[in-house]
Amino acid sequence: MDGPYLAAVDIGGTKITVSIANISGILVKLYRPVQLEGDNLAVPAQVDFLVGHACEQIGIERDEITALGVSTCGPFGIRDGELVLVAPNLCGGLANERGIIPNDWTEIPLQRELSRIYNKIHIENDGISAVTAERMFGAGKGEDNVVYITWSTGIGSGAYVDGRLIKGKNGNAPHIGHIYLVDDGPRCGCGNFGDMEALASGVAIARDYESRVTSGDVTAECTTTVDVTTEGVMAENVTAENVTTEDVTAESVTAEDVFNLFRMGDPKAESVITNAARYFARGLVSINAILDTQVFIIGGSVFMNNRHILLPLVKEEFYKSFPALSKDVEFRPSALDSYLGDLAALCLVMPDDWGRQWQEKRPWEFAPESIVLGTDK
Amino acid sequence: MDGPYLAAVDIGGTKITVSIANISGILVKLYRPVQLEGDNLAVPAQVDFLVGHACEQIGIERDEITALGVSTCGPFGIRDGELVLVAPNLCGGLANERGIIPNDWTEIPLQRELSRIYNKIHIENDGISAVTAERMFGAGKGEDNVVYITWSTGIGSGAYVDGRLIKGKNGNAPHIGHIYLVDDGPRCGCGNFGDMEALASGVAIARDYESRVTSGDVTAECTTTVDVTTEGVMAENVTAENVTTEDVTAESVTAEDVFNLFRMGDPKAESVITNAARYFARGLVSINAILDTQVFIIGGSVFMNNRHILLPLVKEEFYKSFPALSKDVEFRPSALDSYLGDLAALCLVMPDDWGRQWQEKRPWEFAPESIVLGTDK
Repeated sequence: MDGPYLAAVDIGGTKITVSIANISGILVKLYRPVQLEGDNLAVPAQVDFLVGHACEQIGIERDEITALGVSTCGPFGIRDGELVLVAPNLCGGLANERGIIPNDWTEIPLQRELSRIYNKIHIENDGISAVTAERMFGAGKGEDNVVYITWSTGIGSGAYVDGRLIKGKNGNAPHIGHIYLVDDGPRCGCGNFGDMEALASGVAIARDYESRVTSGDVTAECTTTVDVTTEGVMAENVTAENVTTEDVTAESVTAEDVFNLFRMGDPKAESVITNAARYFARGLVSINAILDTQVFIIGGSVFMNNRHILLPLVKEEFYKSFPALSKDVEFRPSALDSYLGDLAALCLVMPDDWGRQWQEKRPWEFAPESIVLGTDK
Repeated sequence: MDGPYLAAVDIGGTKITVSIANISGILVKLYRPVQLEGDNLAVPAQVDFLVGHACEQIGIERDEITALGVSTCGPFGIRDGELVLVAPNLCGGLANERGIIPNDWTEIPLQRELSRIYNKIHIENDGISAVTAERMFGAGKGEDNVVYITWSTGIGSGAYVDGRLIKGKNGNAPHIGHIYLVDDGPRCGCGNFGDMEALASGVAIARDYESRVTSGDVTAECTTTVDVTTEGVMAENVTAENVTTEDVTAESVTAEDVFNLFRMGDPKAESVITNAARYFARGLVSINAILDTQVFIIGGSVFMNNRHILLPLVKEEFYKSFPALSKDVEFRPSALDSYLGDLAALCLVMPDDWGRQWQEKRPWEFAPESIVLGTDK
């Protein structure tokens, strides 16, 4: 296989994914759960380990990597002129409502550590890199005013305005998950009360359902078995093939469980999901008022697995708002979906000629199966 | 006086202001209440009348005007490729909670009508033109990430992100007044319930106080006379020189009355203003999450007349939000204040050399007194 080679790194709240590509396509892709123990160099060390491991898989040396594109959850801060991650889902020392993050980090010196090893790196917020990829290869081609939103465990976004990517002073624009939508309300991992992520994310959906179950209002009427395969898409984070309302306890409920209960006719699940969709839509009203966008592209597992439920609810609420601002806005699902993370990181460092060839040939559709690594090196 | 001459037009919800300038300074400035009767060509006709009248005042012909800069309330729509105003405070045919606008217009064809008369026109939303002026001549000099917010009868804004003005598909970015802040809540003129303008604008402050008074909870303890002159600034929209709580009835209360009652120790006024400031701050949290800005410049009569009350309240609430996004943000009052409208419209059409000279000499500080025209032509 011929170089040059690019490495794509996608750092999320639950896993780190690395892939290596040359102009012909994605050659290898692997991921492992993100390990949040040890000192605050643990994440960059895992990135380096995974890049090294990916190189081994395709028989190249680490120094044959021309550039590293890093797409990561944020937000970012700047320390001594270099980008640091101040992400509450990685750094246990930041506001964190459940104490589930087993470290006391307040920031991760990602740029400093990676630039010690790699000559050329480009780090962006995963919303920013995702909108770049959707505009280059997916549902945002040719659009000057387009916002990508990921509706997943958390909620993130990236935007082009007037044909240009917006970044802001620390590269955090647009951090839509942390806009306020209600006066009081549940606490977000970031410490805010009543922001969009606290009201509409996958975590919020699961928590809202849990709180209604644990408050004693247990649904009794639905005990039929449910096939969790819906619209041909296997829900990502359902652990069993079948689920009944009785299986769903306050300990174990996931957002996908709540959607399955919704499909079974559980009124509590319907209420939780309708609420979440309404808040999601009201968040889009706010970002649209601020950016005057043309197209919303929505991705992320919560949306992509349940879009036939969610999209009508979102549109209904969105178009209720001030028509002069809302009426011409379009909604599209992500066109890259499971390839989005790789393409998002790759397009940060991809040369123009390479980009044009990929636009035409779409080689990511022929990427090899992912290799899943455990938590131990 | 030598040309070339530029005309600056500022269209607000209550008045239209026109000034004419040459490179030496502002030569004439006049305004009249905006007349909202007749057909939907009434506003462009008033603009033309005022420009003609201003030309007469300085002894020039209308065709000596090189370019017309128009700064106007929005939002904007596009009709047949030309900009139209779809502003609920001008167009009675749009959502309008009180029925106080005496027309049934749904849009105003401003660009079409003005371009029939003037060769060169540039129309922008007043938030966009204001931030341009503050960045060129005022509190935003040298800033790449700066948001101007007007806190007045309504709430509007304009923003630079990464050193570039953002406009969006119809030039409405960022229409911050129409972002949602609460679940239900008072109705905005735009039809939204619970948006920023409905909760924090001058109109909202007056209405909130009124509703508390008419609900029977009349403040009895404060009957002392108040001097409405505060910090050397005469409050713009107080009609009497002195006010007591007993003068304030549900029919007549203005935002400035509420601030004066606040200064008298009226607990209801204190509660209303504290609430409004809190919502204003929460709106800034949302726009900051989306734009990752560095500097907020705040202007408008509600803020400028009462900034020693409002700024501490706004900052207190703002910095409670997610520190990774909020901590480095600065607040500055508008540096152009009563000149802002003229400069906002002028800078849309001002040549570069002229701009540089004005940055140095600040000739607007020597502008003549405004001429006030009545409502009849």
